[in-house]
Amino acid sequence: MPAKLSGIFTPNIVPLDARGDINEAELRRYVDWLIARGVHGLYPNGSTGEFTRFTPDERKRIVRIVCEQCAGRVPVLAGAAEANARETIRACELYQDYGARAVAIVSPYYYKLSPESVYAYFREIATNTPIDVTLYNIPMFASPIDVPTLRRLAELDRIIGIKDSSGDVAVMGRMINAIRPQRPDFVFLTGWEAVLVPMLIMGADGGTNATSGIVPELTRRMFDLTRDGRLDEAVALQLRLIELFDTMLYSADFPEGFRAAAELRGFAFGKGRQPLSESQRVDRAALQRVLQCILADFDVVDAPVEGCLPRTGDIEKDKVAQLAQEVMARLRERGVV
Amino acid sequence: MPAKLSGIFTPNIVPLDARGDINEAELRRYVDWLIARGVHGLYPNGSTGEFTRFTPDERKRIVRIVCEQCAGRVPVLAGAAEANARETIRACELYQDYGARAVAIVSPYYYKLSPESVYAYFREIATNTPIDVTLYNIPMFASPIDVPTLRRLAELDRIIGIKDSSGDVAVMGRMINAIRPQRPDFVFLTGWEAVLVPMLIMGADGGTNATSGIVPELTRRMFDLTRDGRLDEAVALQLRLIELFDTMLYSADFPEGFRAAAELRGFAFGKGRQPLSESQRVDRAALQRVLQCILADFDVVDAPVEGCLPRTGDIEKDKVAQLAQEVMARLRERGVV
Amino acid sequence: MPAKLSGIFTPNIVPLDARGDINEAELRRYVDWLIARGVHGLYPNGSTGEFTRFTPDERKRIVRIVCEQCAGRVPVLAGAAEANARETIRACELYQDYGARAVAIVSPYYYKLSPESVYAYFREIATNTPIDVTLYNIPMFASPIDVPTLRRLAELDRIIGIKDSSGDVAVMGRMINAIRPQRPDFVFLTGWEAVLVPMLIMGADGGTNATSGIVPELTRRMFDLTRDGRLDEAVALQLRLIELFDTMLYSADFPEGFRAAAELRGFAFGKGRQPLSESQRVDRAALQRVLQCILADFDVVDAPVEGCLPRTGDIEKDKVAQLAQEVMARLRERGVV
Amino acid sequence: MPAKLSGIFTPNIVPLDARGDINEAELRRYVDWLIARGVHGLYPNGSTGEFTRFTPDERKRIVRIVCEQCAGRVPVLAGAAEANARETIRACELYQDYGARAVAIVSPYYYKLSPESVYAYFREIATNTPIDVTLYNIPMFASPIDVPTLRRLAELDRIIGIKDSSGDVAVMGRMINAIRPQRPDFVFLTGWEAVLVPMLIMGADGGTNATSGIVPELTRRMFDLTRDGRLDEAVALQLRLIELFDTMLYSADFPEGFRAAAELRGFAFGKGRQPLSESQRVDRAALQRVLQCILADFDVVDAPVEGCLPRTGDIEKDKVAQLAQEVMARLRERGVV
Repeated sequence: MPAKLSGIFTPNIVPLDARGDINEAELRRYVDWLIARGVHGLYPNGSTGEFTRFTPDERKRIVRIVCEQCAGRVPVLAGAAEANARETIRACELYQDYGARAVAIVSPYYYKLSPESVYAYFREIATNTPIDVTLYNIPMFASPIDVPTLRRLAELDRIIGIKDSSGDVAVMGRMINAIRPQRPDFVFLTGWEAVLVPMLIMGADGGTNATSGIVPELTRRMFDLTRDGRLDEAVALQLRLIELFDTMLYSADFPEGFRAAAELRGFAFGKGRQPLSESQRVDRAALQRVLQCILADFDVVDAPVEGCLPRTGDIEKDKVAQLAQEVMARLRERGVV
Repeated sequence: MPAKLSGIFTPNIVPLDARGDINEAELRRYVDWLIARGVHGLYPNGSTGEFTRFTPDERKRIVRIVCEQCAGRVPVLAGAAEANARETIRACELYQDYGARAVAIVSPYYYKLSPESVYAYFREIATNTPIDVTLYNIPMFASPIDVPTLRRLAELDRIIGIKDSSGDVAVMGRMINAIRPQRPDFVFLTGWEAVLVPMLIMGADGGTNATSGIVPELTRRMFDLTRDGRLDEAVALQLRLIELFDTMLYSADFPEGFRAAAELRGFAFGKGRQPLSESQRVDRAALQRVLQCILADFDVVDAPVEGCLPRTGDIEKDKVAQLAQEVMARLRERGVV
Repeated sequence: MPAKLSGIFTPNIVPLDARGDINEAELRRYVDWLIARGVHGLYPNGSTGEFTRFTPDERKRIVRIVCEQCAGRVPVLAGAAEANARETIRACELYQDYGARAVAIVSPYYYKLSPESVYAYFREIATNTPIDVTLYNIPMFASPIDVPTLRRLAELDRIIGIKDSSGDVAVMGRMINAIRPQRPDFVFLTGWEAVLVPMLIMGADGGTNATSGIVPELTRRMFDLTRDGRLDEAVALQLRLIELFDTMLYSADFPEGFRAAAELRGFAFGKGRQPLSESQRVDRAALQRVLQCILADFDVVDAPVEGCLPRTGDIEKDKVAQLAQEVMARLRERGVV
Repeated sequence: MPAKLSGIFTPNIVPLDARGDINEAELRRYVDWLIARGVHGLYPNGSTGEFTRFTPDERKRIVRIVCEQCAGRVPVLAGAAEANARETIRACELYQDYGARAVAIVSPYYYKLSPESVYAYFREIATNTPIDVTLYNIPMFASPIDVPTLRRLAELDRIIGIKDSSGDVAVMGRMINAIRPQRPDFVFLTGWEAVLVPMLIMGADGGTNATSGIVPELTRRMFDLTRDGRLDEAVALQLRLIELFDTMLYSADFPEGFRAAAELRGFAFGKGRQPLSESQRVDRAALQRVLQCILADFDVVDAPVEGCLPRTGDIEKDKVAQLAQEVMARLRERGVV
């Protein structure tokens, strides 16, 4: 029986080449880099990995490349959601052949389904697949998996855990209360690194955190400090990392901020699949400068040569400056100034 | 220049065979039936058509079949959204070859995108496609297309209209105010038939209404009465149709209620792609009996031989009866009674 | 038996004097002006009248003044919600003595109550009050009154109608379907004037519309045109009024935009009860200039002497100009320019 | 300078007598009991205390009684929100005279205000009051106080802390990051006891927790264990208390479940101000039996003589039983069985 999943799994971004296709060489280099920096596992075809923006064939190729490159050094949790249960089951079979340790399957999305339908969907898959299944709950994007539904699904042996991206620590507590007495082996992972330390304290086994694709060494350190009972240090790091997480998450449409930050670590991720408008390209460049400043505070990259504005202190002033820059940029575009 | 789109477009359901594959013969028969009953156009790969639950190849096959079977009798508005802009543009090219009059493209979903990203996405497509594009706004499922974004997109000639499923009559008024002065030809379609008549009065050109796949003759009549100024009759029919719409929409996860109702019109739609639990199968059978009673009131089907319970009147009593039946069914399942 | 309530009821704003107290003289003058301009009734202590920001004694004084000043010329619908059912019942008794035609009672707010609690609350009041009760449904601010709950409440004779501010035309249809067969006399009023004409067409009896406190002549005309079957004119006016409504509603925290607009009609409403920050005072002055331009288009006030910017056309340009003005104003405040 | 607020503050329920008036004797007895069981402070006129359902005079009387009875044994944090800023300031003055340590003021509710208005409101109060002010953020009921607004408000000396009932541990982290560097004395209290331990670990100073009005000894123990670094015991207790919290919170309209539970500790709280329907009274009795079972597990009350059903295990079976009981009860009411 394989070891229980635990620790930090990176939902890795997929580098693209100049034509917008998967940049296989860079993806392999990125996988190596992540493993060398200490992540406990990889998680291709997650939300950070923009699984919905690839074709079925591309999704399969991504898992194949990641599994090959990992070559058993760390377990691979493969995102396997396809158009329907039948297609998803086929992907599961393939990913087992590729050597994935388990699959993660997001709850049905687009349509908002009732708990009964969510149950029927996962039941259909779990009773027809040869590979271990991790449920993926991300209520801001997909039909929620509520606690009673989780309880029913945990009766199926093939379902071994849940990855929860609600970010609600109380929900983690409720899930643990509902499942652990019957299934002490059931795995609880959090996808919300703004509260990784509180989640681990509450009983989670680890996280699938986009931030670990940018600062794998820090996410790993946060995990280790918590496990070693060095709570003050863990919380101090947690509080500092919130700024990085928030900036990546809220300053651009997800996951563009994470892509912008990851590039600063020395990888060519290329233009994303979601087109950017002209003003978004300007904003992205500005965001990347801010991200470089934040990362420099953690000593993982150098500060920009032009220096960094103080980020704390009088936010109001920053906002005025930002507004003024925006206006000037717009006026310039139109030839007014 | 082709005639402006107007009237009732049916977002047709796709019949499936015993193996869960597209039932082409039944789909062709259904297309003929809809046209014979007076719908003004067809709309494959809409939300009612469960476009997300088919593979890319299946989606293309569905459009091909519908276009072939229509054979120019009514215009086809083809749902063309694929995994990303590039794939969507390829589908657009194909659908033009198939003879579709225009495509309808839903706003990006899963990720909740900002207005700027929604703009960039549609701009990318509209400036690279040879076929007319109808925007599809369905804020309950996908990133919203707000009025300022619509205004910017309406500057692109290739974008000829919007299909709005918000159901908000004020939003329809705002969109008309924003666009019609510059683009009197721009098409406004509503996807919310509970307010089809008010939408038409406010200025909409027509609707893409799932209900027209079940009672095409009545949806068409509602449109004609409104256009002919027979408002009292139109509103009376509108009010009566709300019960049918609500029952189909809220009694099961969308679009299962519409599939259940459509079967009553004599088509074999087969088991849907989303699995049903045991209790959902029981509920669906009960729902279908209620739907048959409602449809019988409109004289489009016969009432069930066992008769119909009064639907108005003392709801409380019905609810107790329903609860009692549920409990008994559950107890019976478990062998308790 | 008194006539059924119908037509336009104005939820009147309360003028305040320099000390922030009720400006009785101005309130009386405003009441006369509204009646002279054709509103069918008055509605003190509505949301527009900021009932929550007055003390219980002030609320009672407001109703007394309005009833006195009306002196039977038009019916008064008095907002009667107090801290709990007992206090509300006492207010109802008082308002009957003052001569109000009926009371309007908002669903319990702050706590979000279940339908059963909403029912119990209104039942308690309706079975203990001597005056006719209109339910007030405003789901964006208070516990919703859903259709099954409305159906149960409509079994109580004392409850004679509902004022719905959801703005959802389908909901109006559902309520009419549920109640009118049993209670043909039941009154349906809409609080959402962006869709007043569609609501009237769907079967509503009238509206309690904040806009009627600013342009009573136009709101009244919209009602009359619809009733007279002059639908094209009614819809044309409806579409034009959306701009005014939206500007008042969305450009400042409700109901400050309505207060700013009402002042342009020649009344001294004074500083509101909710404090404004410095930048809000600047924004309000700018908003008032825009409102004056909109009202001037309707010929109800003169345009500002400095003229009006085009409001339609290139919104983007307006937004840049607005941004630039904002930045300059902020920089000036700080002595930077 | 008084000691920084910290620990567990009880938002105490107000006992009512047979006529629905404040039961002063019982309130005094309850205050004594809470202090004897170890709570660090009292918090009259909180949401649990149903402040909106009392008249202004009653609210003042409640604070007076609590302050008198406390007599300095523990600090009193008095809920002071009234109809508007002026009235609130008057209440603040009075509560200082009564001996309250500080006031807690909820963000404006009913209307959903912008951050700028929230700022203006609290600024107006904080610059005109003689007593320390704690902000009260409860986004599910009132206009939210976001982090940038909190940062601006923390520049005012009179504002000494925030009580946050969002339940979002990441938000607590963001607030601490934003304020503590400039205001190390600023107080952070959580109102969401389902995550009290994680909140304390993240850096909160304590909590204002309704649960402490029911099991003050356990809430206090959870606080002490966390402060003493006995984290495993703290989390174990936290996880167990979630069941009690959830049952009180979600099984009846807030705060009725807390009132039902508190009665089990031996106090006569009387009928609440919000009327209950007949079926709600039945449900409440059933809920109280379940609550007694949960409390018995904590050894704070005796189990009911008729025994307790197992609460964990097969929830589905419980649900069928519950449904069956409900149906039977309803049928019996109507004389059917």
